[in-house]
Amino acid sequence: MTGVGSAIERARRDRRALDEEHLAALAGLAARVRELAAAVVLTDVEIDELAAVGAQVEALTARLGAARREAPPVARYGGRGRLRHVTNPVTGPGNPFAPPVEVEFTEAGARAVVTLGHVYEGPPTFVHGGVAAMVLDQVLGMAAGSKGRPGVTASLELKYRRPTPVGVPLTIEAEVTGSSGRRSHVEGRILNPEGLPTVEATALFITPQR
Amino acid sequence: MTGVGSAIERARRDRRALDEEHLAALAGLAARVRELAAAVVLTDVEIDELAAVGAQVEALTARLGAARREAPPVARYGGRGRLRHVTNPVTGPGNPFAPPVEVEFTEAGARAVVTLGHVYEGPPTFVHGGVAAMVLDQVLGMAAGSKGRPGVTASLELKYRRPTPVGVPLTIEAEVTGSSGRRSHVEGRILNPEGLPTVEATALFITPQR
Repeated sequence: MTGVGSAIERARRDRRALDEEHLAALAGLAARVRELAAAVVLTDVEIDELAAVGAQVEALTARLGAARREAPPVARYGGRGRLRHVTNPVTGPGNPFAPPVEVEFTEAGARAVVTLGHVYEGPPTFVHGGVAAMVLDQVLGMAAGSKGRPGVTASLELKYRRPTPVGVPLTIEAEVTGSSGRRSHVEGRILNPEGLPTVEATALFITPQR
Repeated sequence: MTGVGSAIERARRDRRALDEEHLAALAGLAARVRELAAAVVLTDVEIDELAAVGAQVEALTARLGAARREAPPVARYGGRGRLRHVTNPVTGPGNPFAPPVEVEFTEAGARAVVTLGHVYEGPPTFVHGGVAAMVLDQVLGMAAGSKGRPGVTASLELKYRRPTPVGVPLTIEAEVTGSSGRRSHVEGRILNPEGLPTVEATALFITPQR
């Protein structure tokens, strides 16, 4: 993927960064919209009320659109000083779709604890298999990045061992198992509250060429 | 995964179904919340306005919570007569998190065209690799299901060939390549607007035992 690295770097530089106060306000709004989405999938109000709330939501969307960026913002957060994507769909505090997963870095790689609610449900009472894949891709990628090799996913292999339950704390962990040049090999898994693996992942990340 | 199939069946039966009119109203509200989330990641309004909109959102969440289900609803939709999960995070019209991907069934399996916006962005201007995995898991699983073998994901392998761009129509296609007993092998891919594969997937789905 020659040239992808420089394109990503350029796009990141072009995005106006948020200061701490602005990021906190955006994260607060995103959290409220996240709660709203969670309420949508479980609401049992009447049809007229669904329509009335929808009309109010439309008006709020218009207010947010009064001033609009070309592309989502970046900011320094998460304790590493590096400009990060505030609206990443897995970890971004500014993205209502992100749980968001809060990743901590470990000696071996990365680790997170997250509860995924009904918004992320596939088969009844279980987390959607694709959502499990999405979360693992992000945490494994951050493990690779923590060793100085931020990269894009080249391959991702997932083995589904048992269902992943919704609404309970899940642990996600990842370890860098090897690296050479621009390539990082990473392994990880989702553990249910009993500590048993529900989904196991192995991935290869490649640092794009500049 | 003995017993998982019967647990899923039971949970599905227990969920009160929505009639057509109620589903349309819920889908309308989910569409408005989807637009609101898209506005959040691109808004450039002042801090006070972010807070004011957030307070309004909180009030709407309370209104939806005035009557609440124990679990998300099911309904007959999508032209197959079967009860479906209205809030599936990839295809569910009632889930603000879902793009939603509208899947059509083909002779070989399944196909969809979808545009993924900045809410699903990973590296700047590109779809998050985990979101690509999530969408492929769903479409490949539906291809398996269309051949009479609805199942849960047992394994999913993804090869990332080139970046998947945000904001342009992507084609997702999947074909069942083999099946025996409760096992279905499926292949699929995401194609960019030039028709080139961005992510290739192979998966094994297993119909759970009752």
